[in-house]
Formats: sequence, C-alpha cells, structure tokens
Amino acid sequence: MNEPIIRQHRQPNQIRPITITPNYLPHAEGSVLIECGNTRVICTASVEENVPGFLRGQGLGWVTAEYGMLPRSTGSRMRREAAAGKQSGRTQEIQRLIGRSLRAVVDRSKLGERQILIDCDVITADGGTRTASITGAFVALQLAINGLIKQGLIAENPITEQVAAVSVGVVNGVALLDLDYPEDSGCDSDVNVVMTASGKIVEVQGTAEGATFSIDELNTLLKLAEHGIKELLDHQQHALQSQAA
Amino acid sequence: MNEPIIRQHRQPNQIRPITITPNYLPHAEGSVLIECGNTRVICTASVEENVPGFLRGQGLGWVTAEYGMLPRSTGSRMRREAAAGKQSGRTQEIQRLIGRSLRAVVDRSKLGERQILIDCDVITADGGTRTASITGAFVALQLAINGLIKQGLIAENPITEQVAAVSVGVVNGVALLDLDYPEDSGCDSDVNVVMTASGKIVEVQGTAEGATFSIDELNTLLKLAEHGIKELLDHQQHALQSQAA
Amino acid sequence: MNEPIIRQHRQPNQIRPITITPNYLPHAEGSVLIECGNTRVICTASVEENVPGFLRGQGLGWVTAEYGMLPRSTGSRMRREAAAGKQSGRTQEIQRLIGRSLRAVVDRSKLGERQILIDCDVITADGGTRTASITGAFVALQLAINGLIKQGLIAENPITEQVAAVSVGVVNGVALLDLDYPEDSGCDSDVNVVMTASGKIVEVQGTAEGATFSIDELNTLLKLAEHGIKELLDHQQHALQSQAA
Amino acid sequence: MNEPIIRQHRQPNQIRPITITPNYLPHAEGSVLIECGNTRVICTASVEENVPGFLRGQGLGWVTAEYGMLPRSTGSRMRREAAAGKQSGRTQEIQRLIGRSLRAVVDRSKLGERQILIDCDVITADGGTRTASITGAFVALQLAINGLIKQGLIAENPITEQVAAVSVGVVNGVALLDLDYPEDSGCDSDVNVVMTASGKIVEVQGTAEGATFSIDELNTLLKLAEHGIKELLDHQQHALQSQAA
Amino acid sequence: MNEPIIRQHRQPNQIRPITITPNYLPHAEGSVLIECGNTRVICTASVEENVPGFLRGQGLGWVTAEYGMLPRSTGSRMRREAAAGKQSGRTQEIQRLIGRSLRAVVDRSKLGERQILIDCDVITADGGTRTASITGAFVALQLAINGLIKQGLIAENPITEQVAAVSVGVVNGVALLDLDYPEDSGCDSDVNVVMTASGKIVEVQGTAEGATFSIDELNTLLKLAEHGIKELLDHQQHALQSQAA
Amino acid sequence: MNEPIIRQHRQPNQIRPITITPNYLPHAEGSVLIECGNTRVICTASVEENVPGFLRGQGLGWVTAEYGMLPRSTGSRMRREAAAGKQSGRTQEIQRLIGRSLRAVVDRSKLGERQILIDCDVITADGGTRTASITGAFVALQLAINGLIKQGLIAENPITEQVAAVSVGVVNGVALLDLDYPEDSGCDSDVNVVMTASGKIVEVQGTAEGATFSIDELNTLLKLAEHGIKELLDHQQHALQSQAA
Repeated sequence: MNEPIIRQHRQPNQIRPITITPNYLPHAEGSVLIECGNTRVICTASVEENVPGFLRGQGLGWVTAEYGMLPRSTGSRMRREAAAGKQSGRTQEIQRLIGRSLRAVVDRSKLGERQILIDCDVITADGGTRTASITGAFVALQLAINGLIKQGLIAENPITEQVAAVSVGVVNGVALLDLDYPEDSGCDSDVNVVMTASGKIVEVQGTAEGATFSIDELNTLLKLAEHGIKELLDHQQHALQSQAA
Repeated sequence: MNEPIIRQHRQPNQIRPITITPNYLPHAEGSVLIECGNTRVICTASVEENVPGFLRGQGLGWVTAEYGMLPRSTGSRMRREAAAGKQSGRTQEIQRLIGRSLRAVVDRSKLGERQILIDCDVITADGGTRTASITGAFVALQLAINGLIKQGLIAENPITEQVAAVSVGVVNGVALLDLDYPEDSGCDSDVNVVMTASGKIVEVQGTAEGATFSIDELNTLLKLAEHGIKELLDHQQHALQSQAA
Repeated sequence: MNEPIIRQHRQPNQIRPITITPNYLPHAEGSVLIECGNTRVICTASVEENVPGFLRGQGLGWVTAEYGMLPRSTGSRMRREAAAGKQSGRTQEIQRLIGRSLRAVVDRSKLGERQILIDCDVITADGGTRTASITGAFVALQLAINGLIKQGLIAENPITEQVAAVSVGVVNGVALLDLDYPEDSGCDSDVNVVMTASGKIVEVQGTAEGATFSIDELNTLLKLAEHGIKELLDHQQHALQSQAA
Repeated sequence: MNEPIIRQHRQPNQIRPITITPNYLPHAEGSVLIECGNTRVICTASVEENVPGFLRGQGLGWVTAEYGMLPRSTGSRMRREAAAGKQSGRTQEIQRLIGRSLRAVVDRSKLGERQILIDCDVITADGGTRTASITGAFVALQLAINGLIKQGLIAENPITEQVAAVSVGVVNGVALLDLDYPEDSGCDSDVNVVMTASGKIVEVQGTAEGATFSIDELNTLLKLAEHGIKELLDHQQHALQSQAA
Repeated sequence: MNEPIIRQHRQPNQIRPITITPNYLPHAEGSVLIECGNTRVICTASVEENVPGFLRGQGLGWVTAEYGMLPRSTGSRMRREAAAGKQSGRTQEIQRLIGRSLRAVVDRSKLGERQILIDCDVITADGGTRTASITGAFVALQLAINGLIKQGLIAENPITEQVAAVSVGVVNGVALLDLDYPEDSGCDSDVNVVMTASGKIVEVQGTAEGATFSIDELNTLLKLAEHGIKELLDHQQHALQSQAA
Repeated sequence: MNEPIIRQHRQPNQIRPITITPNYLPHAEGSVLIECGNTRVICTASVEENVPGFLRGQGLGWVTAEYGMLPRSTGSRMRREAAAGKQSGRTQEIQRLIGRSLRAVVDRSKLGERQILIDCDVITADGGTRTASITGAFVALQLAINGLIKQGLIAENPITEQVAAVSVGVVNGVALLDLDYPEDSGCDSDVNVVMTASGKIVEVQGTAEGATFSIDELNTLLKLAEHGIKELLDHQQHALQSQAA
C-alpha cells in the first residue's frame, strides 16, 4: 500500500474488459457467467412458484438474492461460510444490495405470486464483485423472465428498464472508474453506483473510511459511474440479444 | 400507505427535536441517550486495552460498533436476536456503517493500541435509528476519549473532526429532512448521509426501491442533509460542553 | 472482596429507593421502567392473539418472558448475546423464573387463547436484576391486561393477586434485605424470594455456594424478604393507580 | 391429571428404592449408575489437569457439570439436543444447579489447579432426575478424588462433607417426599432441596406455578426433605465403602 | 502404536462375546442394550404416526436413525455435542449409515405412513460402535414392529430379512474379525460390512488411510465378515425369541 | 423412475467424456476444473504453513478437504448451506471421504509441518460429484506440491502414487460404469471406488438401499471400476504433463 497505485493499462475512465456468457449453467431458469477483468461471477435466477409468507395473497411477486465466494476466489483462502456456520456481515450487506437493486426495476404485480431467487457466486475476485453481481444478475433475471413469458406464465415483461452497477473511487487523488482489487484497497474513497438505463440512481453507496469527499467530488464520481454503466448496459443488451433469436 | 403522507408539524427542511443526555449510564467510559423525536437510542463507548488480532503490533487503535433494538422498541414486537441465535442482515449492515463512520474521524495512530467498542441500543424506534446512533455515538466516543486524555493514557485528541448523520428522502414528491417512521415507510427514495463538520461526506447510502432518482435530485437531498447535519453538530457541541467544565 | 462489606447508607432491613415509571415505552401494550437503587430495567408486556402450539384449542392463555442486558449495563462490557449467537445459561434461568412467577398469579382460563410476552431489558445493573424484573414485569402485565379489559377483549381480570420479588442474603454474618452488587458478590448465601400479596411463596431460590445455611437461617431471611416485598407491592399499587384515573 | 393422584406403594415420607452402582463405566475417573425408582442416571467425573481461563494462576480448582437425557428416556421421544443444535433452558438450569451443589462441598484450594467435569446422563426418567444427578454425582466426584489422592496428586481430601438432593412437594394437599413423574406433574408445589450431611442447605428451589405455599408449608417440606436426604447420604456411604477396601 | 498388536484372547476369526438385552428401556416401543465385548450401546425404536414432508401422501413409511456417545464413553472425555451446538461429521456419517442399513430390509409400503426413529447411544466405546448399533437397532426395530402388528396397526411384517454388521480389518498383516479399539487404531485397513441373513451386502465401507488393499484382500475380509455376521444373526434371533412367548 | 433406464450413448463399461483444466483459478497454489460429462467441479489446493493443533510438533503434514455445491448446480435449487447455517450430513460425509482418499497417497512426513486444504465446489451436478472431486483434487494437490518443490520448501515428492475415483452400479440388472444422475437415481446398488495407480483400493463404499448385492456382484463392479479408474489416471497424467514443461 506504500507505493502509489498508478493505473497502467487502462484510462481512468475506462472499465475493464467485460464478457457475459448467457445460459452458463444447464439447470437454472436464467444464468450467466460475468467476467469483469479478473473478477468472475456465476449469476443464476431460479423461479419458485410461491412467495414468502409476508406477501401471500397480494398478487405480488418477489425477487431476492444470495451471494457467496468460493473459498479460493481470493489471494489467501477465505473460510467457507457453510463451515463457519454463518454468513458474514459483508455477505449479508451485499446480498441485500443485489436484491434491492433488482426489485427496483421489477413491476412485482406483473410477476404474479412467484419468487425469483438470484444466486451470485464469485469464482475469482479482483475487486467489484458486488457490482459485477448486479450487472450479471440482471441478465440472468431477464433470461428467467423470458422463459416465463415463453411458457405463457406471465403476460407482460415485468422489467421496467435495465439496471447495472459499477464502482468508482479516488485513488491518489485521481478519480477512477471500475476499481480492481489493488485500486480498491489503496483507495481514498469508494462509491458503488447502481443505475438504470434512463440514468436514474437505484443505489449509491459511498464510503470514505480513508478520506472523506465533498459533494462536488461525489458528483465527479457519479458522472464517471454513469459513463461506465452505459457501457455495461450495452454488454447486457448484446448478451440478451444473442439468446433472443 | 394509501393516504398521501403530508408532514404536518415540521417544515420539510426541519429536523425533529433533539435531546442528547451525556453520561447516561454509570459504568461506560462514554455514554449518551439521544432522542430524535420519538426515536431514542442509548449509545455507549467502552475502552478495551487491546486490539483485534489483525492489528496487533502496529501501534494503531480500533473503533467498532454493535447495534441492537429492544424487542418492543417497535410497533409490533420484534423477535429478540439473542433468542433467534443470530443478528439479522439489517443489524449487521447498520453496525458496520456506524463503525466505518466513526473510524473516518479518528486518527488511529493517536489512539494507541486500544479499542473503543460502541454499542447503540434502540429503546424506541420511530425512523432514523441508524443516523441517530451515529450522531449519539460520536458524543459517547468523544466522552470516552476525554477520559483517556484526562488519565494521561493518550496525549493528543485522536478525533479529527465531528461527525453526524441524518436521513433525507422524497415523500410524495417532496424532499424531506429527517424522516420519521411513517415518512420512511411511505418514501419514494431514502438517503442516509454521514457528514463531518467541514461538510465532507463520510458515507452516503441512497436506496430507491420505490422510485429511482436522478443525480440532480440526489444533490437536492444532499443539500438538505448538510443543513440538518449542521444543527446536529451544534447539539453534539452543547452536550460535550455541558460536561467539560 | 477482602474488605468486609458493611452496609452504610441503609438499614439491613431496608430496601433501596424504588421508582416505577408506568407506560415508559410508547408502543408496548404495557411497559414500565423500574429503578431499584442503581439497577434499572425496562419491562414490557406484548399481547399476541395466539398461543404456543402445545396449548392450542384448550381455551387457555400463556405468559412467558425474555430477559437481556445491555452490553454496558455492567462495570466491564459483557458480550452481546445476539452477537455470541446464544443466550447464556444464566439468561435462560432468569427468564424461565420470570415467566413462572407471573403465570403463578394468572388465571389462564380468563386470559383466553392469547399470549402475553414479557421482555425485561436491564439498562444498568447493580444487583437484583432478576427480582427487579419480576416486580416491574408484574406492573407491565397488569397494564397490558387493563388494556384488554378496556377493549372488551377479556371480561374479567385474570390476575389473582399481586406478585413481587426481592433478594436476601447473609453478608459477613448479617442478614441483609435487597442486596446490591457489591453485597451480592461478597455474599455468604443468597436467596431470591418471589411472593404474593397474601404472603404466599411463588418461588424461593436459595444458593449457598459460599456458605451453607440452616433451616433457621433460611426462615430469618424469608421474614426479611416478606417485609421488603410488602413495600414493593405498595410501589406497584401506586404506579398502577397513577394510570387508573 | 383429572384423577386425584394418591401414592399407593409408598408412605408419603418414604423415598423410592435406591441403588448406586459405583465404577459403572470403565473409562471415567469416577462413575456411578444411580437408580431412584424408575429414574436411572449415569454420573461420571472426569479429571482434567487445567482450569478455565478465569481461574488460571490462582491455585484453585474447579468443578462443573453437564446434563443430558437420552431421547427415549421419556414417555414420548424428546428431540436430541445435539441435533437441535442447542441445549434447552431446562438443561442449562439443571447443569448449573449440579455444578453449584458440588462446588459448595469442595475446598477448591485443596483440589489444586485442576478441573473435575461431571456428566449426568439420564437413561430413563421418572421424575427427580436433577436430584438423582446430584446425589449420584457426589459419589462419582468422591471416587475421582480418591483416585487423585491414591496417585499422590492431591494431599488432602478437598471434600468438606457429603451432599445429596431430593424433591418434596404438595400433591392434592398432602406433603410427599421424592416425587415420581406422575406426582410431579400433578403437583401443587415442588421444592428441590440440596443438603449436606450436617443438615445445612446448599440450594433450595421451590416453585409454585400451580399453587403457592406459605412459609409454614415450606418448613414442613424442608423437614421432609431433611429426612429423605439422611437416607440418601447412607446410600452414598455404602456405595463408597464398597469400593474402599 | 509402536508395539505390534497381537490379539491374545480371541482367534482372528472370532467375534467378541455378545449380549443383547431386549426391552432395556421402559418407554420405547422397541429397545435393546447390546454389548459386544466392552462396547455397550442402547438402541431404541420410537414409532411416530407421521412421515417427513417429502413422503407425505405416498403410503410409504420411513426409518431413520440418530447416534450419540456419552461424553465419558471413551478413554478421554469427548466434548458433548449438545454443548458444542452441532453433531460432528463422524456422527452424521454413522447415523446415515444406520438409517440406510435398516431401510434396506424394510418394505416401506407395508409399514404405512408412519416413521420409526432409531436412537443409538453409546454408553462405553471399545471399537465397533457403528456396527454394534446396526446389529442392536435391528432388534429394537423388530420389537417395535411386533408391537404395531400386535396392536393391529400393520397387517404384515414389513421386515424382509434380518440385517447385522461387523468390522473386519488387517492388523500387522493378519485379517481380523470384529476389531476392538486398540486393533482398530493400529489397523492397516478397516472394512465395515452390513449384511443380510441371505448373505447379501447392504453396505460395505472400506477405508485404507494407513495401507491400501487389493481386491483379493477385500474378498478375504468379506468372507471373514460373512462368518461373523452369521453369529450375530443368531444372537438377534435368540433375543427376539426370548420376547416372543 | 418407472421407465427402465437404458444407457444409450455409452457402453456399460465406458466412462463419460473427461476434461481436466489445470490452473483454472489464478490465486490457488493448485487448481483444476474437472468435467465428467455434465458434472463440473472446481478443485483447489491451498497451502498453509501450519497444521491443526493435534499434529503440532510431530513433523507431519496434513491434507483435508471441504466440499460444496452451488445452489443452482442441481435441477431444482438447493438451499445454500451458508444460509442454512450448517453443512448437511451428506456434505460432511463427502468431504471426509475426499480427505481420507488423498491422505492415503501422501507421505505426511515428507510434506513437513504444513497443511494442504482441498476445496471441491460443484458448479453443475449430473451424478458422480464426489468421485469427480477426488479425481480432480488429486491433480490440484499435485500441482500445489509441485509448487512447493519448485520453491525448495519440500525436498521430495510426498505423493506415493496417483489416486482416482469412479462410481459403479447395477441399473436394471446391468452393471454400469460411471453413473450419471438419472442412472444413479434409478440404481439398484451404487458403489464408489477410490483406487490407486497400482490397483489398490483406498476406499470402497457400497450402498444397496434399493437392492442388496452378493459378494460376486461386488467383484464384478470392482473390476468395472478398476477399468474406469485406469482411464481417469491417464487423464490426470495428461493434465499434469501439460503443466510440467
């Protein structure tokens, strides 16, 4: 952390190479492998024909998410949460964020009384696993919903618009888009932005444990995020269109 | 949720009545009862002369937080987390937020190898418990540190500046400061802002499960939050000065 | 513990100053803050319109209790049970005692098939938290039942008589009423007595890990307890009458 | 429970047939099978050459206890606590009682810095399992200590006197000694008494969920208990003497 | 482990002395105490008039098993699983094996929609606790089923044939039947065989953590097991016939 | 299950197409993706420079394994074990089997006092996940050990010979090699065989919940397994040689 981190192979406003492989797993109603640089996440969407108790009888659907990391997705092995007997605070924070982000673009009355469970499992981690999870999970969710429409189970697409996410942060005084792990660790401030195709914010989570930031600096970072998210939305589109024919 | 919520006894840019009672508990090194309208939280700061394993031998201190709610702090009784055998995702999310917010204004090298444990326990909840916790916990932390200075255990105040927090949100199209529980539940979007005395953002967490918001709208909310936080910082000052003589 | 403990500001047969603040919390059907010297406990009674499975269909109600301590209610911070993932043996022992004590004065057939959940949360602890909990919980229970009667949900008061509790013990050979924490720690023997307004024993729990006691000594302690409980019953009466008008 | 329970094959002041089989298990340092009527409990004492952290370096020993029931010790199968993932409140209450009862007759400075772990496992339950556990555990403890003395590990017997336990209660208005399960279930009030050979009380736990009792009635029950405990002490003596030769 | 282990009081193809005491516990529908040398296990069969959710409405019964060890069944005290809060991997492996072994000889359609829960609790352990559990559990199961037939609850015996189990292994190059604990610990390879009266294998689990074995060696061990199991089947017969009159 | 299962695209003695991709993950000391037909498992080997407490100071290494399945590796979504708060009995059984299988071919004195943790995470499941895990984990283990040798941390290869695993079973009376999920579910009997390059058995686990099998039938199945394992050993060789240059 002592050496100043200087991004060498990307421009500050450039996202990492993205690959979204749709229908990556054979069993799930929707699934993708999303790769953002060296971060790789498998996202699946599973349809269940029931809703949690608190929603029963209201004609509304539900979307919720779980998140996990393979023990050796990281540089040193992490303890397996199933063996530890509980999910960490970080895991819970992330899976709640994914769930809220997707529900923001779903018209739950059009989904009917069914639940879509999103699973995001990190295969390798190099920063930005929560934002990659949201970006990939949106595609898995749309694929699962396409299946429901094809089967005639739902009449109309309940998804109101696309949603994607990216991190932005200030590293050594420079505003950077789409932080990788060394950048994130050496970061002064770090903001995760979840945004829709129409440029509306769904979630913004800015943390400045290292160095606080002004409202102006936040606006600079949000613009950078908006720029990156546009590209991510294109990648989502391409992945979905490749399956549509 | 059907009736439009119209704030009646406060201006949209007005915070609720605040009372901060310092040294509320006899045993803790620092403690306050903070009351924001009908939300009441006991915040304590406990000093321990050791640090977590990952920090040992580095000459750095640590500040961390735990959060809880009395089962009957809410309108219908919540299950006691100790009986359930685990803390909910929401609890973990909140206590991580409190910890990060306070660490952002602490120079951990001046604290020495000791740990300050913050406990925020909600006695009654009427919205804004996490922001009230941060605002109150700052005072408890400063009181505990004052004690360490008085005892000659630390030479210099490790606190770099004051920090406080407030929620802002759009309800029925109107931007409101310091949401109470009915407003929060009926809210289109909800942003928690943690800010320092110098107007720098420590954390911003905006959620728009109901209705997304634009960057411009976020800026309006941030300005409103800044205004409210100034008042909260004054209340912190008064509480601390009342103990200083 | 080496210095002999001599009670200085109270007579051996004198209880600590008592304050019972009824309706302390806005949401609970019944609630009090009880203060016995420096011991402060929030007691609430929550009404639920169902009973545990083993009682269903029998026309009988149920009363049960949970107990907790704020982490910094004590001189050195206790680990939060919700974080530890389980309630200690001591906690379970105490909450079972509170539940039994209250059920002893409730005619469960008059309560109907509903459950009253008692929560006792210790804000500051200076000895006698379990007996203060019982004394305070009785008032919270009666307040909740008064509400049920006022709403016409139950026809007749199911409470058969008042119940309160106090500790007694031998310290340095002297029988003392209502032990505070230093007395309790330095105690040869320690008896908790739960007694009704008619002078009947509901629970007696005597422990002599330090020094065993004879049947005669037990009788001396029971007389002392009876004397203290009479005063506690008066305090309960006053608190209830203040709400009755 | 509707039929009045009338004790038929025993006098009200008569304990059930007792058998104590010493050295029942081959591996434990001390062990007994105690049978009180149809209640059968295996009690073992295991010596460990260390003490819990809070006692280290003080030259004091420790005695603690655990309690369990075989799933089919009871009329209908109980859930296995190991499968449930936690010990019930009742189990914890009982094992804490057993531990305190034994520590009351051990001079821990003579035991040296070692720990004796008592295990009481109920094979069949017909009332009075906690009192049978204490009565049996005392013999297992003495056997383990005899072994330590024989090996020269401790110089002097740390046991100050014998201890045993019995239940007494009022059933249909009649004071009965040593309640079996039907009596205990039909009981108006129920008192467990732990007493030493010199007639001193170690623990008294009286519960009157059904019908409260006066101080006079308690004294009647204590006398009955004292009478039963004398017999139990004799059985302990015989069991120990049979191994002494 | 350094001294070669030489079996002294038994022939290599000789099982340990077996005693099966039927109806050992008063409450269970079926129960035995099985003693194989110094290994003693209480096996019970409890009948429940329901089946797990996944079987409901299919007209099929279920047989499942749980396994436990008393803390002091072993040379040094094992931690109580109920206190540890979970069953070890070994425990789960064994109880799954017992369940599968018994289900293999039960025609579940003849059992009707009811469940038989087997509990195997080890009182003293000297090797072979899982095979003794299976051998004993079969008798407990048959006793419980006999009761169901006697009550007219099932028409036909659902048990298709007897099943028993034994361990075999190579110790210092010699194939041994029915290993005790020292033999098992010093063992090159260890095979548990579950076999029916008609000589069919139900389960074979061979482990060679120490020294691998060839297919020929496995066959030698299987023959040895077959020989031992015949004797165990006789013991089961005698135990059952003693109860049949 | 009603339709007879007839293997169509493979001979009964033919394994599924195998692909082993070495160094599949960037961070682990050793890793592979193993694909056996539609079963895909990521196996990693992580080196830690310490051993579990029970091995400290003996100069011996340790190899242990953990196993998990992605929630949507299966046809219907499985509950995430981290969310459930515990690993199932099946998971524990499998990870113990993987650990024993690998330790059988490791000379732990040559490994030194270090531990290799194997993680096997199933991405998609179509039968044989435990045997694929063992076959893949062996390669990951060898890759990690090659790294230790290259770094000069160990002098000599501690692996004594290759080990691989396959399942065999009788389906509709036909002995089949390498069962896929429909075959496994419709199976009369199912045997997992772990075998070394020299043809020695490390583990054999045969289960006949459906239909028991004779010793002769077991021998037929073992021969079939031996045949399949030879091919698996070749695949392991090729994967390792591709990395050796």
